[in-house]
This record gives sequence, C-alpha cells and structure tokens, in this order.
Amino acid sequence: MIVDIHGHYTTAPQALWDWRKKQSAGQKPGPLRISDDEIRETIESNQLKLQKERGSDLTFFSPRAGSMEHHVGDAAISAEWSRVTNDVIHRVCSLFPKSFAPVCQLPQSPGVPPQNCIAELERCVNELGFIGCNLNPDPSGGHWKEPPLIDKWWYPLYEKLVELDVPAMIHVSSSCNPAFHFTGAHYINADTTAFMQLIQGDLFKDFPTLKFVIPHGGGAVPYHWGRYRGLAQDMKRPLLKDHLLKNVYFDTCVYHQPGIDLLLKVIPVENILFASEMVGAVRGIDPETGHHYDDTKRYIEGNPSLSASDKQKIFEGNARRVYSRWRG
Amino acid sequence: MIVDIHGHYTTAPQALWDWRKKQSAGQKPGPLRISDDEIRETIESNQLKLQKERGSDLTFFSPRAGSMEHHVGDAAISAEWSRVTNDVIHRVCSLFPKSFAPVCQLPQSPGVPPQNCIAELERCVNELGFIGCNLNPDPSGGHWKEPPLIDKWWYPLYEKLVELDVPAMIHVSSSCNPAFHFTGAHYINADTTAFMQLIQGDLFKDFPTLKFVIPHGGGAVPYHWGRYRGLAQDMKRPLLKDHLLKNVYFDTCVYHQPGIDLLLKVIPVENILFASEMVGAVRGIDPETGHHYDDTKRYIEGNPSLSASDKQKIFEGNARRVYSRWRG
Repeated sequence: MIVDIHGHYTTAPQALWDWRKKQSAGQKPGPLRISDDEIRETIESNQLKLQKERGSDLTFFSPRAGSMEHHVGDAAISAEWSRVTNDVIHRVCSLFPKSFAPVCQLPQSPGVPPQNCIAELERCVNELGFIGCNLNPDPSGGHWKEPPLIDKWWYPLYEKLVELDVPAMIHVSSSCNPAFHFTGAHYINADTTAFMQLIQGDLFKDFPTLKFVIPHGGGAVPYHWGRYRGLAQDMKRPLLKDHLLKNVYFDTCVYHQPGIDLLLKVIPVENILFASEMVGAVRGIDPETGHHYDDTKRYIEGNPSLSASDKQKIFEGNARRVYSRWRG
Repeated sequence: MIVDIHGHYTTAPQALWDWRKKQSAGQKPGPLRISDDEIRETIESNQLKLQKERGSDLTFFSPRAGSMEHHVGDAAISAEWSRVTNDVIHRVCSLFPKSFAPVCQLPQSPGVPPQNCIAELERCVNELGFIGCNLNPDPSGGHWKEPPLIDKWWYPLYEKLVELDVPAMIHVSSSCNPAFHFTGAHYINADTTAFMQLIQGDLFKDFPTLKFVIPHGGGAVPYHWGRYRGLAQDMKRPLLKDHLLKNVYFDTCVYHQPGIDLLLKVIPVENILFASEMVGAVRGIDPETGHHYDDTKRYIEGNPSLSASDKQKIFEGNARRVYSRWRG
C-alpha cells in the first residue's frame, strides 16, 4: 500500500472560496452550499485521477494550506473558517474512505494562545475521525511574531496532541510579506526555521511522545545536515538522532531525483514518510524527465539504494506508526 | 591556487567589539585602537593557520556578518560602523596581501534607500581596493520589511555595482527575531528567499552584468532545484539557467559530503565558487569524518565526478571571473 501523507484540497469547488471571500470581507456568507456531486467531480478529476495514474492508494488530506490564512480576521473568523473547511475535508473522506484520510486545519490566530485550537482539534479527532493536524508556526503570515515552537506558549496544544495521539505537520499558510513568495520561500523557510527552533530547545524531554512532521523534505535541513549536526554540537545539544529524530519526521515533497537521493542518504529511513503534496505548489511536467515534478513516487523508486523493506517503511509503515489513529 | 570567497573577520580583536558596544549604547567610542600586532595575532592563529592546514591560498575577507547589525541605530550609526569595520578589513588585507582580499560591509539601515551605501562602496572599492561587497536583503534583522531585491528600490545601488564591476554577496546579519536562529535559520532562509525573489522578477534584463553570490550553498535552493525549476515554469519564467544563472552564483558553504555532492550535481560548475566561511558558524570537528565540518575543500576533493578542469573553476577560475577586480 502506498500512502501519501501530504495532500491539500487545492481543487475544492469555487463555492468554498466564494464563501471564504465573503467571510474575509466581513459579510455573513451563510451556510456553505456544495453538493456531494461537486465534491466527487473535483476529486475524481484531480487527486483521485492522479493517485490512479501514479499508483498511490491513499492520501492524508487537509484544507488548502495557502488558504488557512490565520492572519485574516480574528480568532472567531479563524474558528468559523476552520470548522467550514474541516467539514469539507470530512465530506471528501466520507465519500472516498478508501482513498483519503482527514487532517485538520487549526483555528490559530496571531497572538492568540493556541489553546483556542483545542475545541476544534477535539471535534475533528473525536467526532469526525481526523488523524492529524496542520500546525502553523507563523499565523501572522510571514511576519513571524509568535514565540518559537519550543516556547511554553504552545504547550497546552501539545498536551492535547499527545493526549489524542495526533501528529502535527508544521505547515505555514500564505505569506502577506512581499519578501516571501509563499510556496517558493515562506514554506521552505518555515520548515528550516521550525527544525532549528527544535534544536535550540528540549521540547521532546517535556513531550516524549509528541510527533512533528516537517514537510517539503524538511526545507533546507537535509541539504545542510552537516551544518545542523555541527550547530547542535557547538551548542552542546545531543546528537540530532537522539535530540530530535525520535519525534520529528520529514516528508518526501522534494521535486527532483537528486534531492530525494540526498534526503534518503542523510535522514534515517524510519524518519521519512512518502508525500507529494499533489495537487499543489508545482503542477507542471519536468521537461528533463517527461513526468510531473511532484510525482515523487518515481524518485523514491528511482533511488538505487533503498531495499524493499525501506520502501515499505517510507510508503506505508512509517505513516502507520506516526499517524497511529489511522487504521486504513 | 585555491581561493575561498567567503570569510569574515569573526576573530577580530576585542577592542573592535568594545568599540561597537559603546557605539550601540549611544556613547562616543573615539578612535579605534588596535595595533598591527594584534591584527596579525588574531589572523595568524586562526584564519591563516587554517588556510595553511587545509591548503587554501587566499580568502575574500569581510567584516563579521552577524555584527553588521544594520538594524542597530540609524543610518549615521551604520555608516560610522561600516567605515570602522571596513578599515579593519583593509588593514588585514594590507598586512597579508597574499592571503586576503577585501570585501566590504555596506552602511544599510532599515527603510533607508540604499543609495546611502554608494559613498562607502566607492570609498572601499576606489580608494582601498575592495573587490566585492555584502548586501543585506533584510537590514531589519529578521523582520523582512525591505522591498524584494527585484524592486526598483535597490536599483541605484545596482547601478553603482555594475559601474564598479563589483559582485554582491547576498548576506543577512544577525536576527533580532526570536523565531529565527541567526546562523541556523535566518542565514539559510535569506539565501532561499533571495533566490525566489530573483525568480519572480526580471532584474537581470535591467542589469545584465550584475553579479550576485548566494552563500551557504544557496540556502535550500539546490536541494529543491526541481521545485524552483517547476515554480519558474508554472510562472512562465524562462529556464533558470537563462533567467538567473548568468548572474547568480552559489558558494560551497555546505558542511557535509552529501550536500556538496548534490550542489555539484544540480548546479552548473560555472556557477559554483569555493568557500568555507571559516572561522564561522560551525567550528567543531565532525565525529563522522574526524575533520572540521567547515573544511569544505575536502568535500570538493571527495566528489567523485569532478574533472581537474571543474575543480580549477570552482577553486579559482570562477572567482577570477566573478570578482573581476581581484588581480591576485
């Protein structure tokens, strides 16, 4: 079985985005009206089609990351939007239970203590069967005003994640800082930033069973693995494998063979989870290969060093271990 | 000949940092008093010793990046500090002309148009023989309030760089944003951010001879080369080799063999300049190799695919082409 742990509903019906547009403009959008057929159509002609073409079986599916927009409006706006969009994810996964498992957006809001996310997290996990969540380390959208992830600011949420046994993917949303292109800079920077924050602290001493997934192949981290090992050493931190790798995982959203080869070389196979983020940031076909850039399964299969057992871990086994509420 | 294009005077005598401390505190620090012998001692026991041990010949040498601190004080403070610290670099290079060539800090200040840097740049280049400069894309120190590098905001400075035929290394300073560890997140993020900004614009149509060096192996860029190729393609930009690689270069400050191997695999050899940033961000010895993490010459030499001609380009030839004022 091949499980893609990182997909967003980027192709949701226009009615969802219209609803959000009204809400952002301070209007009352009323109930969201999307039919099951509309949902089926957007999924069958996009994500499900690509699953079949590429040969993956199931995607852990969450709301469009760039549309979480925690920086828009206040905590009430964020809470309402999160409920609406998480409900849509729930509907997708109910319509296609063999192909999608739900991961939720959290109703974060800049400067608002993250315990405000607990009610929605509990609703999604306990009532709707969600198996994971996306945690935004920068709800300001590119201004980075929240305390680092190792700060006790975040602890109430971590306590709930541990209690529910739910992993968090550390994933920012769109950028409202013109310095940062959202998928080309803000996403990758956030991955790198989060990992470095974790090096600086002792978060997993306080939460030994907390699980974080760092997407986009860990940002810059595997490429600079020597730098991070060396910085940790200079800072008298433990070896990264002991300090972080019992709790931190990387996905495989790296869109060329040499990048995946590097990831597989430097990060232990137990810490790597297959993902493509399709349909997502990069939609084209690579003229150098004739295949979609984000068809990352090809790169895993194209790596000459992985054993069958390694591949099984990356494609399925690690996902079962990390997303332990998933029973697909 | 082996030229290291990226070194900072991290080991400058304490009197320099004391001077800066006084200046930052609003006091009048008076003339800086450092003897030639003090400079000799700090260089001979550090950078020069390591050059000899590792077998490099000459370093392009600039003020300590983390101490540029463009966010401290106003433009006058930044101008005074830049003159003082650039003068110290000039003294180092005058004392050791066969081992160091000078690269200057610019007196940037948050929100101040960068033409304020031109006088100091001209002084350094025309009067003191500097061959390059470090340009900070985020003088706010981690708050990223300046327009992107493709914005016309920067053009007066670019005009002068072109006129003087001086390359700019895109290098941030310390971070005053607690989200960003300076050498572990802010530096690497800045490299990634700058490259993505350049993808978004057409800067090199306006400045076909402008030259930028992106340090730290290009941040996350080579690891995500497929992502950047794909984003450029989705955005209808030219191929990256045509769009950016006639003007943008990467150094080799990547502190492990797999990272360097990736860099050498995906980036054309003409765009790679040898560098170590010693004595810099990572000072320890890698227990996996028994050598310093930042002894990057070993990784270049350890790459199995480079020809002798490729190595000559990386170690010397490209530096002569990019830093064309250097006649060492």
